Amino acid sequence: MILTVTLNAAIDVTYQVGCFVPGSAMPVQHVHQRAGGKGVNVARVLAATGVPVCATGLAGGRRGEAIRAELAGLGVREEFEAVAGESRQTVVVTDGRQHPTELDEPGPAIGPDEWDRFQRRFTRLLAGARVVVLAGSLPPGLEPDAYARLCAAARRAGAAVIVDAGGPALRLACGARPDIVKPNHRELERAGGGAAGGAAGGATGDAAGDGCQNRVAAVFGAGARLRGLGAGSVVVSLGSEGSAAVTGDGYWRVSHPHITGNPVGAGDALAAGLAAGLLAGRSWPDTLASATGLAMASVRQPWAGAVDAADAVEFARSAVVRRVSQPGAMIDG
Amino acid sequence: MILTVTLNAAIDVTYQVGCFVPGSAMPVQHVHQRAGGKGVNVARVLAATGVPVCATGLAGGRRGEAIRAELAGLGVREEFEAVAGESRQTVVVTDGRQHPTELDEPGPAIGPDEWDRFQRRFTRLLAGARVVVLAGSLPPGLEPDAYARLCAAARRAGAAVIVDAGGPALRLACGARPDIVKPNHRELERAGGGAAGGAAGGATGDAAGDGCQNRVAAVFGAGARLRGLGAGSVVVSLGSEGSAAVTGDGYWRVSHPHITGNPVGAGDALAAGLAAGLLAGRSWPDTLASATGLAMASVRQPWAGAVDAADAVEFARSAVVRRVSQPGAMIDG
Repeated sequence: MILTVTLNAAIDVTYQVGCFVPGSAMPVQHVHQRAGGKGVNVARVLAATGVPVCATGLAGGRRGEAIRAELAGLGVREEFEAVAGESRQTVVVTDGRQHPTELDEPGPAIGPDEWDRFQRRFTRLLAGARVVVLAGSLPPGLEPDAYARLCAAARRAGAAVIVDAGGPALRLACGARPDIVKPNHRELERAGGGAAGGAAGGATGDAAGDGCQNRVAAVFGAGARLRGLGAGSVVVSLGSEGSAAVTGDGYWRVSHPHITGNPVGAGDALAAGLAAGLLAGRSWPDTLASATGLAMASVRQPWAGAVDAADAVEFARSAVVRRVSQPGAMIDG
Repeated sequence: MILTVTLNAAIDVTYQVGCFVPGSAMPVQHVHQRAGGKGVNVARVLAATGVPVCATGLAGGRRGEAIRAELAGLGVREEFEAVAGESRQTVVVTDGRQHPTELDEPGPAIGPDEWDRFQRRFTRLLAGARVVVLAGSLPPGLEPDAYARLCAAARRAGAAVIVDAGGPALRLACGARPDIVKPNHRELERAGGGAAGGAAGGATGDAAGDGCQNRVAAVFGAGARLRGLGAGSVVVSLGSEGSAAVTGDGYWRVSHPHITGNPVGAGDALAAGLAAGLLAGRSWPDTLASATGLAMASVRQPWAGAVDAADAVEFARSAVVRRVSQPGAMIDG
């Protein structure tokens, strides 16, 4: 079983408006609302592809109840710890023409007792978990070493661990030796990986010549540094440019045909694919290809956390995974 | 007792952000959330000033539960009819510098059975009501004559009725002979009152010379037309320019010292003051002055539906109520 952890679960609300005019009062034409947070999205994708999954984390108030009820309705086993505060909502406003405007609530403040209770529950759940996914932002009240602590407990219990986060939480988690960390490009920068000031290959961001290749070289450098901090492997999602991975087996570059749709949640689908690959003991090329297929299938759905399983299999075939002999150079894998 | 009716109750959410940048993802620094909808705000103001009040209407889902729990916690008797759909939320985003951006959900679709059940409950509640306030937008599924039907039932039961609405709902309600209708300037236009194309005084909006006086003359004209449709009196809130009233006792103009603060909910406080005036049998000058005091006290509070009762008494003394002999001219009342 895969255990996903969402410490700052959310209700994700999307508002469709006729024309978004800042500073005015607008009627909302269509409201869409669903349970969210990165770990919840990972659990949804796994459930949609038939992988056994349990979703845990912290959820509170009426929104917390709604999150739990929605997961249960999807057939996902949910083991959330109830907290006193109300779970957050995120609001995305779109008129289908301009770039969406997104408002992210910080989430409820978590008390020390609530965090202790959650850790005890997490330890119990580890008995049945072979892979643990720690994903998303930390709510107020938790220390930045929260993921590091959970990662250490999971490793002691013999589970493989994926961390999908950024900033100090990611950096500290690396010290607890997770199997894979999966920041996106921005999170890698915030973790102090210094993607833009890249070390390997001497590239420094999108300078002259091949901007994308330089950027990938910088990501490889920053990934290698996270490995130096203790992460087993580092997979970095690069949006429409695919992804890049630094593993014990070397450097990998994944690209795929251009695809249009909704990019929100593609990173969560990628993380779900990495977790499924760990659970099944797949090779890196197979894991990266199938995870990329899930990310692409997610782009074709209107909401984060949704995939069509048949789409994902089809898209995985179109993903190109290349092993790179040294950062900055590409060779066939 | 005053009975307030809110057919499209809401949770009003206010987001404080650092700097509002449309098309970006922003962390919300502060979240404020409270039960809302015009009738709910009227009930809050009445309760804050010690006037006996009962709040009814339609509320559903987890938000509906939150609305009911909040009113009960304020000591307001609540008699909402539960509906299957989830009550709406409104989201206001402010950075304290630019004009706030407001997103208004349409609300849950109301089924015919739910509307029938509500009407039966309303009829029961009329036994104890001397004044009824019908306030705010209608949710999807209700016909525009919803307020007209409730007004007719209340009048048959011997209660006085105030309608605070706009558009066809207001125009149709006038036919059921409410004691007072209280549109704001924009709602008056949408009701087809044609304030901008004003009849009385021959004024046509803010043309040359005294724009405000022409505007008030146009409002008087439009108000007289709503009286012609059946409304007993018409009170129109004009924001910082006070209000104007057309009654059986003549035309009234209310002005007050300039006051800074939060204008959202000032119209609801004005409606509460009109209801309290009807309940107590006050004269028009006294009613208009005390209602204006409540509206001003509301502006001094950060949220709609809140007033400090002592503030309201103080502000009422500063309101100037003048009777106007004929539209367009001002004389002392």
